[in-house]
Amino acid sequence: MCGIVGYVGKSKAAPIILDGLKRLEYRGYDSAGVAVLGQDGFKLAKQTGRVEGLIQKAAPSTLPGSCGIGHTRWATHGGVTNENAHPHLSSDGKIALIHNGVIENYAAIKKFLLSKGYTFASETDTEVLTNLIAYHYEKEGDPADGGSRLLESVRKTLFHVEGTYGICVLCSDCPRELVAARKGSPLILGVGQDELVVASDVAALVSRTQNVVYLKDGELVGIRDNAFEISTINDTDVSPVIDKVTWQVQDAELGDYAHFMEKEIFEQPQALENAMRGRFAEDGSTANFGGLNLSANELRATSRLMFCACGTAMFAGLVTEHLVERFARIPVECDHASEFRYRNTPLFSNTLFFVISQSGETIDTLAAMREAQRKGFKVLAINNVVGSTIAREADGGIYQHAGPEIGVASTKAFTSQLMIGAMLALYLGRIRDMSFRDGVEIVKALKAAPDLVREALQQADHIKQIAQRYAQVSDMLFLGRLELFPIAAEGALKLKEISYIHAEAYPAAEMKHGPIALINADCPSVFLVPNNELFNKVVSSMQEIKARGGPIIAITTDDADLPEGLADDVITIPACHEAVLPIVATIPLQLFSYYVAVERGCDVDKPRNLAKSVTVE
Amino acid sequence: MCGIVGYVGKSKAAPIILDGLKRLEYRGYDSAGVAVLGQDGFKLAKQTGRVEGLIQKAAPSTLPGSCGIGHTRWATHGGVTNENAHPHLSSDGKIALIHNGVIENYAAIKKFLLSKGYTFASETDTEVLTNLIAYHYEKEGDPADGGSRLLESVRKTLFHVEGTYGICVLCSDCPRELVAARKGSPLILGVGQDELVVASDVAALVSRTQNVVYLKDGELVGIRDNAFEISTINDTDVSPVIDKVTWQVQDAELGDYAHFMEKEIFEQPQALENAMRGRFAEDGSTANFGGLNLSANELRATSRLMFCACGTAMFAGLVTEHLVERFARIPVECDHASEFRYRNTPLFSNTLFFVISQSGETIDTLAAMREAQRKGFKVLAINNVVGSTIAREADGGIYQHAGPEIGVASTKAFTSQLMIGAMLALYLGRIRDMSFRDGVEIVKALKAAPDLVREALQQADHIKQIAQRYAQVSDMLFLGRLELFPIAAEGALKLKEISYIHAEAYPAAEMKHGPIALINADCPSVFLVPNNELFNKVVSSMQEIKARGGPIIAITTDDADLPEGLADDVITIPACHEAVLPIVATIPLQLFSYYVAVERGCDVDKPRNLAKSVTVE
Repeated sequence: MCGIVGYVGKSKAAPIILDGLKRLEYRGYDSAGVAVLGQDGFKLAKQTGRVEGLIQKAAPSTLPGSCGIGHTRWATHGGVTNENAHPHLSSDGKIALIHNGVIENYAAIKKFLLSKGYTFASETDTEVLTNLIAYHYEKEGDPADGGSRLLESVRKTLFHVEGTYGICVLCSDCPRELVAARKGSPLILGVGQDELVVASDVAALVSRTQNVVYLKDGELVGIRDNAFEISTINDTDVSPVIDKVTWQVQDAELGDYAHFMEKEIFEQPQALENAMRGRFAEDGSTANFGGLNLSANELRATSRLMFCACGTAMFAGLVTEHLVERFARIPVECDHASEFRYRNTPLFSNTLFFVISQSGETIDTLAAMREAQRKGFKVLAINNVVGSTIAREADGGIYQHAGPEIGVASTKAFTSQLMIGAMLALYLGRIRDMSFRDGVEIVKALKAAPDLVREALQQADHIKQIAQRYAQVSDMLFLGRLELFPIAAEGALKLKEISYIHAEAYPAAEMKHGPIALINADCPSVFLVPNNELFNKVVSSMQEIKARGGPIIAITTDDADLPEGLADDVITIPACHEAVLPIVATIPLQLFSYYVAVERGCDVDKPRNLAKSVTVE
Repeated sequence: MCGIVGYVGKSKAAPIILDGLKRLEYRGYDSAGVAVLGQDGFKLAKQTGRVEGLIQKAAPSTLPGSCGIGHTRWATHGGVTNENAHPHLSSDGKIALIHNGVIENYAAIKKFLLSKGYTFASETDTEVLTNLIAYHYEKEGDPADGGSRLLESVRKTLFHVEGTYGICVLCSDCPRELVAARKGSPLILGVGQDELVVASDVAALVSRTQNVVYLKDGELVGIRDNAFEISTINDTDVSPVIDKVTWQVQDAELGDYAHFMEKEIFEQPQALENAMRGRFAEDGSTANFGGLNLSANELRATSRLMFCACGTAMFAGLVTEHLVERFARIPVECDHASEFRYRNTPLFSNTLFFVISQSGETIDTLAAMREAQRKGFKVLAINNVVGSTIAREADGGIYQHAGPEIGVASTKAFTSQLMIGAMLALYLGRIRDMSFRDGVEIVKALKAAPDLVREALQQADHIKQIAQRYAQVSDMLFLGRLELFPIAAEGALKLKEISYIHAEAYPAAEMKHGPIALINADCPSVFLVPNNELFNKVVSSMQEIKARGGPIIAITTDDADLPEGLADDVITIPACHEAVLPIVATIPLQLFSYYVAVERGCDVDKPRNLAKSVTVE
């Protein structure tokens, strides 16, 4: 989604801002722009396409000044055009603005501003906001108390605005000033050596400083020279808390890999170890989590679990549903966060809520969490980014510790969520009816996961060859059952996201109730067919596809005995415990989609239309 | 799925059997065959393709005899070949067999039979069964009590068989005899004037008689001349109950329509009236159902509802979930029947179970019902076919009264299920917290549904023109929210089933979490965007698609104010109550998929690979 970088300091602003924008590229965008405030007022450069193109057009040397803002845009209002790119200037030329989010009452405000003589060059809600700040700045005199006129103008403006925003504002009258504010969109203030950086994501400022203030919803920060003050929109002062970021800048760099997605696929054994570290009980029979903020006694009283998430994280929830239901015998429901938020489903008072979000900024998931909290439920978060909005607003939770995930298509964050889900199922089982013996067996199985994943990763070359053969198809089906159905769904989503092949998943037996109409020689199917109690049933589904001429790729376990000639291609993974199988079965699907996308020449780490963390509704 | 017709009577068997097979065509098949037993033994004709082709090849006049069997095959074991088509003859030429279902231990039996010198011409499990009957017939002497040697051979054979079957058996030694048996596959005996007909579906025998005996699982029927006797596989006699079929033969004929699907789309106002008839309380504030077999008191104690179904019926369950949760504030879960059967989800003892199946023969749904019953739950069925296996085995239920549905792609049965779901939600609401006033309002709204559907059907020509413009696309997305998400899913499934366009549905806001990668000028989206509390949110989703160049078809209500130019094509339906909106919104989607399929030259009523009611697992 849209990215924000703002800078006030002693260095030249443009190179720092452009470097920050490059580090935000992974979040997805379609245009980029930068504005710097120098001796001669604003210098502005913006255009559609990549940040690299922007750098070539606007050489940092042509953008003087040590105060500026930059933006990557993911279109919501208005098409992908140079005019619609940010920053936007007010029609009087005084205010420059970058904005993440959506202004919902922009039409009414625009009407008002047109009547006041302001003009508009773009189709965006952002330009409306820019002119409204200019209007208030014009009306506002210089504050008597020596306060900032710009800050007060922004505060007044935000009173009148409905919607969500993360903004950075410059004013041509105020060469060393920057105002930023947030509601619904993340914003972080980096406190560096003689410089202050504002960004929508830690990745954009970690090369300048590791000292950060996570701004809360409804807060404004006013920067003048080397000082900053934080207040709320309602003008209450806020004492800033400075946190330390643990990520290093090299964690988010590519190293020897061709793509971040490839790097992150191969980082999974390590990410799984990080998810487990320090979280098993001394007796080796259960998991422990430090941050749940709920006692075993409170957790025993739970009669139902609810998971809300979006996209890939939702599939991690669906796998966890199966494992919790099996191990702990608690009914679990999983819902799309965007739907849960509005559907007002009846809830039992002893429902335990979880949200899952890698970034901790997914707006739909955040909104679902707030809706549950409004109804009086405690919500726990499974989340990778320390200090994210969801992590801070949740009543407790479990950090993934997977390290920064840069590839837009989630890989290591997903399997890390699966691991935490399995550990959670174990823990909830052991405080209910699960025996010490079963607990020990599952702990052992989970500890084996990193090595099993290493073994699965060794199939990379074999999978690459298969992927190259199938790379030119337009349609695919992904089929699995029970805890492997969500894995099939994740495999289909991954392929869709980075190769634009129309891949779709079904529970394997549901396929014959309609989707089988798609099957012909041009529509291959990927079957997840481990050696378990449903092996023969899945084989029957494969025979139905085979009888209709559909090519088959089978992902099976090394202890299974697939009928000769049934699958056109076979990928074998090590046999393993049902708690670990979803993790191990994910590996070949990730590799398959990665190699297909590479073979098709797709931009793996920055697929078209997509955003890494979706911060608009 | 596979169809069975058997005949013993005074007329020539072949024309009656071939007519029956034609009436079974709608169930989906890929090959057909017939065997008649005349003076010179068996005459057999079978081949891949349509029944019409079989009739041309094997003119009824070349198939003499008044005892015979016929079959339509939907391939499971072995490809679609002439050899694999039924009937199969035993290698000694004595036994002819047709078979629906799957013999799971066929490999072991085949090995045994090969050792006894039997030979095999096909890849099917059915031929194995044929030879096993021949083996037992050979071993069995003529019964001392004048009983049937053929019947006893079949009984012995079925002792040794694992799997599911509906079978008809002839023996060349017994010119006026036919034995049929069932386990897991439906079979109905028609008792006509001087003739007996066995069929897998009422449609195949209703032109001969309306007097039928619904065979139960594990029952055999032995027919000799004009007499029949029913017993169990364990040799217990069964007293037959003769039922009367209410359908007329013309109900299942095409009339002036081009396709059954078109006919059934236009029959929906009538089908909705039939679903409501006699089911509203006298005070006009609630619905009543005669056959639930549960008191209001028992239903009040319900803390959760569970729906299991497959394909289109599952989407009816998902809509009902929303309405029950809104009107009655009871949490509802909906599961794929095939998954529920094996996933052993934890259940509360006061869960109320429903299954939904038009045909009442869907094997996955039947198995889910039996699993719930095994665990001690009462299961209620929403079902269209009177006397179907699910209807008979359920603990209660609601008949749809939609009349026979012949088109493979379900239309009137679906909206009829939606109507019954809405009435159920109303009923469950009124025995809980719903007021008289709200009840009256909903009853009024439901009664208006047939006329609203008539109004929506008037858009047919407009929708046809739109459909013709989009008919050549390869991919589409269908997007809706809350109770209209399942309707989007049904719209996508319908298009997939009959036009083979890869259409997929998402909750509208979930689209941006991955699937949006598919969007370009070649991938249109259909949005369901009624004027309700989420109108602006759906409009935002449309803007995200529009910004990425995706064409948009909007289905909106006549009181909505869509932004000018946002959608490329707009279809307007009448504004209506949320209980009725899913029904009315379905109409344009059905018409769209129908006209697209016609434009593409697809075989609308008999789409490739599909079966009307899926009677294998």
